[in-house]
Amino acid sequence: MDNNADTLISARWIVPVAPAGQVLTNHAVAIRGRRIVDILPAAEAHQKYADAVHHELPGHALIPGLVNAHTHAPMSLLRGLADDLPLEQWLRGHIWPAEARWVGADFVRDGSRLAIAEMLRCGTTCFNDMYFFPEVTARIAAGLGMRASIGMIVTDFPTAWASEADEYIAKGLSEVMDAHKGEGLISTCFAPHAPYTVSDAPLSRIRTLADELERPVHIHVHETAAEVAEHLERHDCRPLDRLDRLGLVGPNLIAVHMTQLEDDEIALLAERGASVVHCPQSNLKLASGFCEVAKLRAAGVNVALGTDGAASNNDLDMWDEMRTAALLAKGVAGRADALPAHDALHMATLSGARALGLGDEIGSIECGKAADLVAIDLDRIETQPVYDPVSQLVYAAGREAVTHVWVAGQPQLVDGELTQLDIDEIRANAVEWGTRIGAADIQNT
Amino acid sequence: MDNNADTLISARWIVPVAPAGQVLTNHAVAIRGRRIVDILPAAEAHQKYADAVHHELPGHALIPGLVNAHTHAPMSLLRGLADDLPLEQWLRGHIWPAEARWVGADFVRDGSRLAIAEMLRCGTTCFNDMYFFPEVTARIAAGLGMRASIGMIVTDFPTAWASEADEYIAKGLSEVMDAHKGEGLISTCFAPHAPYTVSDAPLSRIRTLADELERPVHIHVHETAAEVAEHLERHDCRPLDRLDRLGLVGPNLIAVHMTQLEDDEIALLAERGASVVHCPQSNLKLASGFCEVAKLRAAGVNVALGTDGAASNNDLDMWDEMRTAALLAKGVAGRADALPAHDALHMATLSGARALGLGDEIGSIECGKAADLVAIDLDRIETQPVYDPVSQLVYAAGREAVTHVWVAGQPQLVDGELTQLDIDEIRANAVEWGTRIGAADIQNT
Repeated sequence: MDNNADTLISARWIVPVAPAGQVLTNHAVAIRGRRIVDILPAAEAHQKYADAVHHELPGHALIPGLVNAHTHAPMSLLRGLADDLPLEQWLRGHIWPAEARWVGADFVRDGSRLAIAEMLRCGTTCFNDMYFFPEVTARIAAGLGMRASIGMIVTDFPTAWASEADEYIAKGLSEVMDAHKGEGLISTCFAPHAPYTVSDAPLSRIRTLADELERPVHIHVHETAAEVAEHLERHDCRPLDRLDRLGLVGPNLIAVHMTQLEDDEIALLAERGASVVHCPQSNLKLASGFCEVAKLRAAGVNVALGTDGAASNNDLDMWDEMRTAALLAKGVAGRADALPAHDALHMATLSGARALGLGDEIGSIECGKAADLVAIDLDRIETQPVYDPVSQLVYAAGREAVTHVWVAGQPQLVDGELTQLDIDEIRANAVEWGTRIGAADIQNT
Repeated sequence: MDNNADTLISARWIVPVAPAGQVLTNHAVAIRGRRIVDILPAAEAHQKYADAVHHELPGHALIPGLVNAHTHAPMSLLRGLADDLPLEQWLRGHIWPAEARWVGADFVRDGSRLAIAEMLRCGTTCFNDMYFFPEVTARIAAGLGMRASIGMIVTDFPTAWASEADEYIAKGLSEVMDAHKGEGLISTCFAPHAPYTVSDAPLSRIRTLADELERPVHIHVHETAAEVAEHLERHDCRPLDRLDRLGLVGPNLIAVHMTQLEDDEIALLAERGASVVHCPQSNLKLASGFCEVAKLRAAGVNVALGTDGAASNNDLDMWDEMRTAALLAKGVAGRADALPAHDALHMATLSGARALGLGDEIGSIECGKAADLVAIDLDRIETQPVYDPVSQLVYAAGREAVTHVWVAGQPQLVDGELTQLDIDEIRANAVEWGTRIGAADIQNT
């Protein structure tokens, strides 16, 4: 370790997430280029890295960037369209017609920019996306210096992007895979939509490709009881069984939602090293059911956290999601110690990174890892007094306390201001889409 | 209606809450003194009330002030003390020893100020408090121009404030009752702690006094299954039965928590016109159980919303609470339309006012009511686009978007800045208490 660093960030508290439970007081993180090169007491750091640009954050906690492990970023343009309806009426009467009419490269470009602006403002530095025109979202993210895992979406059904499963796979491989690898911020995964929308042949082909190319497989699984019942009738087995028979239940699997779980299924996921993404607010909003997070974690399953799209949440706020996850897990398990604050923060950071196959690159503050970092001001009265900073982060802090965000060492948010995005342009754009989409939605109903 | 008004507030959207579901676009509210005197189209208002002070809020929603119907305000000084422990260990090992050591007039004064600052910043204009030294909280609230319903707390157990139930009642009547009535901002209620901490004689006396003085009775009821089971063993009936036999189940009853409810109990509450206060985040955090909000509302019970104290939440944020209530009710009922956004906002405003016996005074934007008003900026990208402003308020907005708060016509928050409270002093004070309490807590463990 030499004494070169570009940037030095000293904070009242540093929560590295690994090792678990550790909180460093009055320490600093030194960054060179894209990576963390040192973590040391602040006083020592100021001497050792005297030439670096200093950020002193005397009332702040510094944490790894949040990883939003399940998003449909462009759907932020549909935020709050036709809420509070029964699920089928919402989907078939509003969301699907709006998507059929509006989704194209322009919608995906503008929706992705709105989503990335919102995510950066709340301290999310990496998101795992599943949507149409994924190459557009990849290009937008890379251009802004945002880290993303871009799903090569596959369904049996035609959309504006592709007409059938083989074409989805082909477009994914040609237009998304390895896109923007030069920047190192974009990774890719396969994203078959769900067991009920993708048939065996494409699922098998995805399994082979995912193994060959060593990519994760991001898929909705067991979101609702109705979906499991219907699958049982159609395929004579539960969806997870079928995925397992097709060889998809392994360390590459990112199984989203999982509100319906039997004990042997939890054991299977643990044994195979699969990851689950918990989306508590979406599961509640759509009345999908309750994911048994405490049981999954106790069995050793890696459980990450996601907001889902803004149409069913209705925000991309990982603070709110982390708090809901920590609270709901206690209610569901019936134990006040079921999911402690430190574990909820782990889910929102390192567990997310591991699910996306990025556990060696991001998710914790460790030397050699990418400098994806977030500073949160705990000096606000809403988080005072501070007995345990991690408790205040999870149960009392919110997105409004996020002051600084770095992705791969580059400042994306400084004193609450985005550095790469024009917020007025993004707002004006969202207003314009909202006017058009809203008018058409009212005509439909 | 003459043309005199001191203040005119025009907003992009006004959500009066009564009539239910109404949203006015580009309207204005005129205030004279403490009261709303007119609601009319903005263009017309600007002519009619040309001499009033104008607040133009072109991207905002104006709503009635939020009513936090269950708090223990001074406990904000214990925010996050010893989280994530099993309930008994948290209470007996940390919270009760901290209270026994620290609670006195100073603690209550400083904790109440911290809580009121937090509540005003998030748009709460009235809180219903239950704690020791209630006359101190009443004095602080009245002095700051904050509206509060102050509970005359009663338990069988000795504390620094009183030694047994009769003394609690006497002190409540002499020191709290009718305190600060001159200002009109402080109302009072009886606040027997819970069926398991107050015996029949004081409960009967409270019933008689509450009837005579026409005051609500604010009490924790059926918070946990264990409490109901223990009561069954000790009294051979469920707690609500005992309260009913003592004549306490009526329109004056404010029954907090109610996570354990049988169908005949829901029917009883509805028939008697009692109110329930739902505290979803506290119930989740302490793993107390799930309140059947949709069933209660369907039966016609008035259900209000509360944060509980900051020791079990860990904030006093009614936005977060409203969102959790709206989401959780759907999950518990298994229906995505179980508690629509408009109904959640009603719970956080007019239902709260009605529970406190203040339904004619506050809780909605209506001519003649007190001007307790809150403006929320929906122009932020986190709440764009806007298809339905109430949906964005409940599911996507947060305390950070609150820009203006008026209590009884007086500005308490202007452009996000408190007008009556010195935030630096409150913070410094909280830090000091935290240091002392934290050090003693560590010595205890």
